[in-house]
Amino acid sequence: MQRFKLTIEYDGGRFVGWQRQDNGLGVQEVVEQAVKAFSGETVTVYCAGRTDAGVHALGQVAHMDLSGEWGAIRVRDAMNAHLRPHAVVVLDADIVETNFHARFSAIERVYEYRILDRPAPPTVTHGAVWWVPKPLNTDVMTDAADKLLGRHDFSTFRGTGCQAKSPIKSLDELSVTREGEGIVITARARSFLYHQVRNMVGTLARVGVGRWSLDEVSIAFAKCDRRAGGPTAPASGLFLLRVGY
Amino acid sequence: MQRFKLTIEYDGGRFVGWQRQDNGLGVQEVVEQAVKAFSGETVTVYCAGRTDAGVHALGQVAHMDLSGEWGAIRVRDAMNAHLRPHAVVVLDADIVETNFHARFSAIERVYEYRILDRPAPPTVTHGAVWWVPKPLNTDVMTDAADKLLGRHDFSTFRGTGCQAKSPIKSLDELSVTREGEGIVITARARSFLYHQVRNMVGTLARVGVGRWSLDEVSIAFAKCDRRAGGPTAPASGLFLLRVGY
Repeated sequence: MQRFKLTIEYDGGRFVGWQRQDNGLGVQEVVEQAVKAFSGETVTVYCAGRTDAGVHALGQVAHMDLSGEWGAIRVRDAMNAHLRPHAVVVLDADIVETNFHARFSAIERVYEYRILDRPAPPTVTHGAVWWVPKPLNTDVMTDAADKLLGRHDFSTFRGTGCQAKSPIKSLDELSVTREGEGIVITARARSFLYHQVRNMVGTLARVGVGRWSLDEVSIAFAKCDRRAGGPTAPASGLFLLRVGY
Repeated sequence: MQRFKLTIEYDGGRFVGWQRQDNGLGVQEVVEQAVKAFSGETVTVYCAGRTDAGVHALGQVAHMDLSGEWGAIRVRDAMNAHLRPHAVVVLDADIVETNFHARFSAIERVYEYRILDRPAPPTVTHGAVWWVPKPLNTDVMTDAADKLLGRHDFSTFRGTGCQAKSPIKSLDELSVTREGEGIVITARARSFLYHQVRNMVGTLARVGVGRWSLDEVSIAFAKCDRRAGGPTAPASGLFLLRVGY
């Protein structure tokens, strides 16, 4: 038996999320079907972070076990051949120790949230950004982001249905950078609560358009209550960038 | 009568090109319909560079005349309201002198060609790159690009159906830059022959994968014959970036 670590990219707009749902195709399902198609083996593919419908991944990590002897590059290429025409690809396949677990071995997750900040809606980046027509002040967004850094109770940004045992998380990075009309918010932590990144982004955008002051962010954060936080930013802007081990 | 300069962005994958065709929607048609919808006026919109099917624009420029009195921002926003749900938007509208002509006043056109150079096909950038699974050597591509700079007979890169009076053009920039798996080729000139950028890119890619030497590029270029050139790179990777006046 060999364990494979897979690095996976996908366009989340084409799937109901990582996990299969009654209403459509899950990334996991498509990946498992591709494994079956080239190897004949029925496997379960475990991922580092189960993304929601519409959320993209540029560096999702997953693992699976194969009984047959396969080279890593062979696995990557065979899976990609069978993954077509779905908008999911295997960027890398590596043979790893059998104690490697995509989810439980991960020590860091990095997400990127992309905003298109201009009066006109997106065209070529449709489905891959959050369109904010009002001008966002990224300097005050950075100040607001700094308030969320460190180890805190993140209940204000915790989505309904979150299965984490505790709302206490350590946020290691939350940076806001602008390049022209594009704004990128990078969030890095060992792990995140459900919807945490999108909820933080929704709050930062409130600050960016001038609806909330920095003090209002602090007050909302201290309340440890989701109802005190800003709105959930749309899934389309969110990318799982990489997972560290 | 007021003349408006429009800066337009569109996802070329959704259109048969700038111009209307029997087999589908042209960008021009959609733009003219949006003008009609908000102003009641039937106008002709003239662009700087008529892009082909699948070719994108991040900064196409066009002009049109309106009899009514409209503010520039009003025109931009009204057109965008009526352009939905089409993947075309007006980034800017400006009132210009009536001797301004989007095509004939232009003194510079800049195109960007995007390549995804990796074993796995694109997902989120599908339709907005040319996927080249073989590794491209961008250093030799740069050397090959340098050979095309300056004033020359570009017949080797001239597409069938080109309506230019002369194949002599001045190529002011042809640069090749890599960032990870992405390669961007920037081409800048007063004007280009039909398919010139895509044909030059096709030749550069031949050099990049090692099929052609630099000498072979020089020989093909000197032949002034399209049949001596490399293949036409796909439309999906090409973006009209900006037009200078």
